[in-house]
Amino acid sequence: MKPYAIGIDLGGTTVKIGLFTTAGELLYKWEIVTRTEDDGEHILPDIADSILSVMSEKQITAAEVEGAGIGVPGAVLANGIVNRCVNVGWGIVNVASELSKYLGGIPVKVGNDANVAALGEMWKGGGMGYRNLVMVTLGTGIGGGIIINEEILTGAFGAAGEIGHIPVNYEETETCGCGKKGCLEQYASASRFASRAVKKLSEIDDETILRNYDPLTTKDILDAAKEGDKIALELLEDFGLTLGRALAAVSAVADPEAFVIGGGMSKAGPILLDAIRKNYIDWAFHASKNTDFVLATLGNDAGMYGAVRMLL
Amino acid sequence: MKPYAIGIDLGGTTVKIGLFTTAGELLYKWEIVTRTEDDGEHILPDIADSILSVMSEKQITAAEVEGAGIGVPGAVLANGIVNRCVNVGWGIVNVASELSKYLGGIPVKVGNDANVAALGEMWKGGGMGYRNLVMVTLGTGIGGGIIINEEILTGAFGAAGEIGHIPVNYEETETCGCGKKGCLEQYASASRFASRAVKKLSEIDDETILRNYDPLTTKDILDAAKEGDKIALELLEDFGLTLGRALAAVSAVADPEAFVIGGGMSKAGPILLDAIRKNYIDWAFHASKNTDFVLATLGNDAGMYGAVRMLL
Repeated sequence: MKPYAIGIDLGGTTVKIGLFTTAGELLYKWEIVTRTEDDGEHILPDIADSILSVMSEKQITAAEVEGAGIGVPGAVLANGIVNRCVNVGWGIVNVASELSKYLGGIPVKVGNDANVAALGEMWKGGGMGYRNLVMVTLGTGIGGGIIINEEILTGAFGAAGEIGHIPVNYEETETCGCGKKGCLEQYASASRFASRAVKKLSEIDDETILRNYDPLTTKDILDAAKEGDKIALELLEDFGLTLGRALAAVSAVADPEAFVIGGGMSKAGPILLDAIRKNYIDWAFHASKNTDFVLATLGNDAGMYGAVRMLL
Repeated sequence: MKPYAIGIDLGGTTVKIGLFTTAGELLYKWEIVTRTEDDGEHILPDIADSILSVMSEKQITAAEVEGAGIGVPGAVLANGIVNRCVNVGWGIVNVASELSKYLGGIPVKVGNDANVAALGEMWKGGGMGYRNLVMVTLGTGIGGGIIINEEILTGAFGAAGEIGHIPVNYEETETCGCGKKGCLEQYASASRFASRAVKKLSEIDDETILRNYDPLTTKDILDAAKEGDKIALELLEDFGLTLGRALAAVSAVADPEAFVIGGGMSKAGPILLDAIRKNYIDWAFHASKNTDFVLATLGNDAGMYGAVRMLL
């Protein structure tokens, strides 16, 4: 094993890049802008230039680098070909071979960003010690990544772990970002948690500290819940029910050892885990009632860590 | 590789046993009664006696047998220990080591029956050519087995693939056999298909050939649907919607290449697959809309085949 590896997390706005030891120590990290113009054709050359320049600055040669791993926001097939990354302008791109070429032959592995983050949390984050886990990232949407025997479950069409798109409401009339109706992420993402709260406040007259905030954020509601605000607690309970029930469905398929809960919302800590787990237990198949619930710990670095772990 | 292997499918009434070549040819099969009395303590000795007697009759020595695989109706942990098989009276039993002992040291592998049947269908049945599939067995309940990269997904608690227990109706008041409420198998098993039809007939006045049957069986309804009976077609459509929607949830987790539909109901053939697939497409995440739907072909032998495949 060579001493160094590169972890890359490609987002729609910035690319996060980390120089790691192959033992998993993050030595240096930086960011560059994601240039999505011209169908995203500058992205891979930009990433390679930036990496080669840092390597040169740190006097690291290509022969000392085990490889580069990259997480991308789209479906990745088992052969490393990316099939549409809307956020960065890509159609079908062979990221592995192109980036490797720009990097002068350093081997490259590519994975879906949510899957790679799950692997990162397993390796060095909240999921350490588990070999089988499902990571749930609560953000604008709901990201999911499934790890089985320490490896990413990609799925036949690159769509394994798309748990935000589990149908949970068969009567919904609004359309999800994916084009379907009634997906989990229409109800239980961090963004939807706040917007549903605003809607609820407009429908009830109860006194609550939540009326003091404008705009009302997810963090405001979670803080109020910690202070015992009745309406905030009801909102959290409702969120925990929707998500816990859906994770019971996930367990009836994949039966992981643990769910790792990440995304900005996970900063709320145990109160969030408890709300989800309590409802999960009510809806889970009997054999799976003791699944662990843990918090993600790597934050925005999870993708870089996982990208490196993919190489090893 | 030795020339022979034994495949065993343990059920609540009978044990199906097959003598195979390790290339997967079924040479001889037979059944014995499952003696569930005395906490099922006679089952493994009975199986071993029966196998040793057939081996002796066929002049096959232990040195010529690669091993014995057994599918059991209960949760099996990764270490081969069985955790409760209610139907055969077992609590916690180390099936692998006990059966191996009774067989004079022939190696034994154990798996959950639904999972093992899925592996059998992948190896020599309707799932041939797929490396990632989900088998759905429509019977009294709904069995499920998940194959990933040609291996059984066991799950942390032996409950992976328990797709009959995905929550699909959050308002149900009746309790499922598992103790929860609103599980998929409360609506879309073969048994429920018939009982829901009887209920529907009592609620409507429409003319239908289904009123000529007493008792009305699943096969009667499927046959009537093939003949174009309007009520039978509505019942089938409703069944396809319930199951197709749930399998869309399965794909959002495991994203298989194919669903293999088995159980007695699958004898109805393409009309059943079409009813499920049509609704599946409406509810599946866009990347997973092209998942194949195929019929199981090994019938009651799938478990024996899969039990042998487990050994290889």
